[in-house]
Amino acid sequence: MGFRPLHDRVLVRRVEADTKTAGGIIIPDSAQEKPQEGEVVSAGSGLKSDDGKVTPLDVKKGDKILFGKWSGTEVKLNGEDLIIMKESDILGIVG
Amino acid sequence: MGFRPLHDRVLVRRVEADTKTAGGIIIPDSAQEKPQEGEVVSAGSGLKSDDGKVTPLDVKKGDKILFGKWSGTEVKLNGEDLIIMKESDILGIVG
Amino acid sequence: MGFRPLHDRVLVRRVEADTKTAGGIIIPDSAQEKPQEGEVVSAGSGLKSDDGKVTPLDVKKGDKILFGKWSGTEVKLNGEDLIIMKESDILGIVG
Amino acid sequence: MGFRPLHDRVLVRRVEADTKTAGGIIIPDSAQEKPQEGEVVSAGSGLKSDDGKVTPLDVKKGDKILFGKWSGTEVKLNGEDLIIMKESDILGIVG
Amino acid sequence: MGFRPLHDRVLVRRVEADTKTAGGIIIPDSAQEKPQEGEVVSAGSGLKSDDGKVTPLDVKKGDKILFGKWSGTEVKLNGEDLIIMKESDILGIVG
Amino acid sequence: MGFRPLHDRVLVRRVEADTKTAGGIIIPDSAQEKPQEGEVVSAGSGLKSDDGKVTPLDVKKGDKILFGKWSGTEVKLNGEDLIIMKESDILGIVG
Amino acid sequence: MGFRPLHDRVLVRRVEADTKTAGGIIIPDSAQEKPQEGEVVSAGSGLKSDDGKVTPLDVKKGDKILFGKWSGTEVKLNGEDLIIMKESDILGIVG
Repeated sequence: MGFRPLHDRVLVRRVEADTKTAGGIIIPDSAQEKPQEGEVVSAGSGLKSDDGKVTPLDVKKGDKILFGKWSGTEVKLNGEDLIIMKESDILGIVG
Repeated sequence: MGFRPLHDRVLVRRVEADTKTAGGIIIPDSAQEKPQEGEVVSAGSGLKSDDGKVTPLDVKKGDKILFGKWSGTEVKLNGEDLIIMKESDILGIVG
Repeated sequence: MGFRPLHDRVLVRRVEADTKTAGGIIIPDSAQEKPQEGEVVSAGSGLKSDDGKVTPLDVKKGDKILFGKWSGTEVKLNGEDLIIMKESDILGIVG
Repeated sequence: MGFRPLHDRVLVRRVEADTKTAGGIIIPDSAQEKPQEGEVVSAGSGLKSDDGKVTPLDVKKGDKILFGKWSGTEVKLNGEDLIIMKESDILGIVG
Repeated sequence: MGFRPLHDRVLVRRVEADTKTAGGIIIPDSAQEKPQEGEVVSAGSGLKSDDGKVTPLDVKKGDKILFGKWSGTEVKLNGEDLIIMKESDILGIVG
Repeated sequence: MGFRPLHDRVLVRRVEADTKTAGGIIIPDSAQEKPQEGEVVSAGSGLKSDDGKVTPLDVKKGDKILFGKWSGTEVKLNGEDLIIMKESDILGIVG
Repeated sequence: MGFRPLHDRVLVRRVEADTKTAGGIIIPDSAQEKPQEGEVVSAGSGLKSDDGKVTPLDVKKGDKILFGKWSGTEVKLNGEDLIIMKESDILGIVG
């Protein structure tokens, strides 16, 4: 069963902070909001302006990304914990 | 008797959280706002910009959707509990 | 004596919640803001953008509508209680 | 001596609520903000967009209007109490 | 020595409320924000949109204006108390 | 060593309030936010709109300006105290 | 391993305030938010408008910049402490 995020939303699988990631990202332990690493599972068709124009997203399935700790909405899909967030919540692409 | 949502509004039938859905979505039990599953009963003609341009919606009758728990306005129509929400409250399409 | 709502405003006659309406709408008794049923008495010429472009409204005289309980401003016109609201306060059209 | 309201502002003479108006409007006595009746004394040249485009107003001198109770700024001009408000504060035209 | 207001700003000389003005304006004594009368000393080149388009102002040197009591920033120029405000703070032109 | 302000930012050298300025500006002693006089040291390339269009600024190196007391960010450059502010924080040009 | 900031975001290496920088910037010790010096490690592809138009950034890899103390999100990449911020958080370019 699949899930297609709407518009500029992206479905993300979190890479847990307590496992050292392949990319070598280590989240510093401070009081600031800490970015987290994740992988894009599926991406929406694009940002939809008020005039109806659709702009494709800059992230695609498989991208390793950093995102803010409190971004998005958690959802369990096929028994797996995933996050639905907007592309604007993504800080950048690792790799 | 029918109901036609105006502009970018969508009429949604909630799929109750206490029944395991066909799509296999299980809502995690946490303090965050939890998405809920629903089915589109009818959709408005489209998002209307300030300039009067109408953009058709990306969801249609029959779509299985996820939406935020507190989205929309509850209404009873022909004895059935339904929700009227905006398309922007919809997180994505399941299936 | 008539009343012509300005721009995107609509003059609405409320259908009282304690009478079962022809459309069969029954408002659920909950703590949420409850939509109410009404009938459009007269509609403005259209939404006026900052650039002066006017877009005709999607509701017209005689439409049965649902609207939020706290929408609009109450006014007594020719001895009748009516409500002036914006088209964007209207949830959809019944019928 | 005259007064020319700037842009989308309108100079309005209030029709006192305690006199029954020619139009037959009676303001209901409730806790909500109550609309009041007035007459347009003079209107600005039009709404000016950020791009400098001017759109003529939809109200003109002599129009009988309804407006919200707390709209506009009171001013005494040639010994008469008047109100300067924006066209968007006007609910509609009576007559 | 001169002063050239930037963009849509206007330099205004206040006409004191305790002197009866030539225009006959008497400010009513109430709890609401009261408009005050002034004279335009110099006006900026125009409102500058985000796209860089400049729209000339509708007020010019010598115009008698009404403005809100708390509008603008006070400045002493060549020993005279003046106010720098935006054109949008001006209610209208007297005369 | 130089400093190039980005976009619509301007680098300003404050003219101290306790020295009577050449322009004769004397800041009144009141509770309101008081404008201060300064000189433009360097100006950015222009205001950048969301569409990427760049509009040159209306102030240039050497202009004597007035600005609000709390505008901008203080920085020490080559041992001199300067202020980085946006052009929109500038009230006007003296001279 | 690299990191590509998304849209108008920039990856910045902070130049510590306790080392006198090559540019000679000394941050004054006051209660205001103090700008800090940094170096651009990598820059996003550009600011993306709602209409999908991309405008290249004005900063590039290697630029020495000033930015507000509380700007951006801290991240550790390949063992190095870096900051991800938006171009609009950058005050200007030193050099």
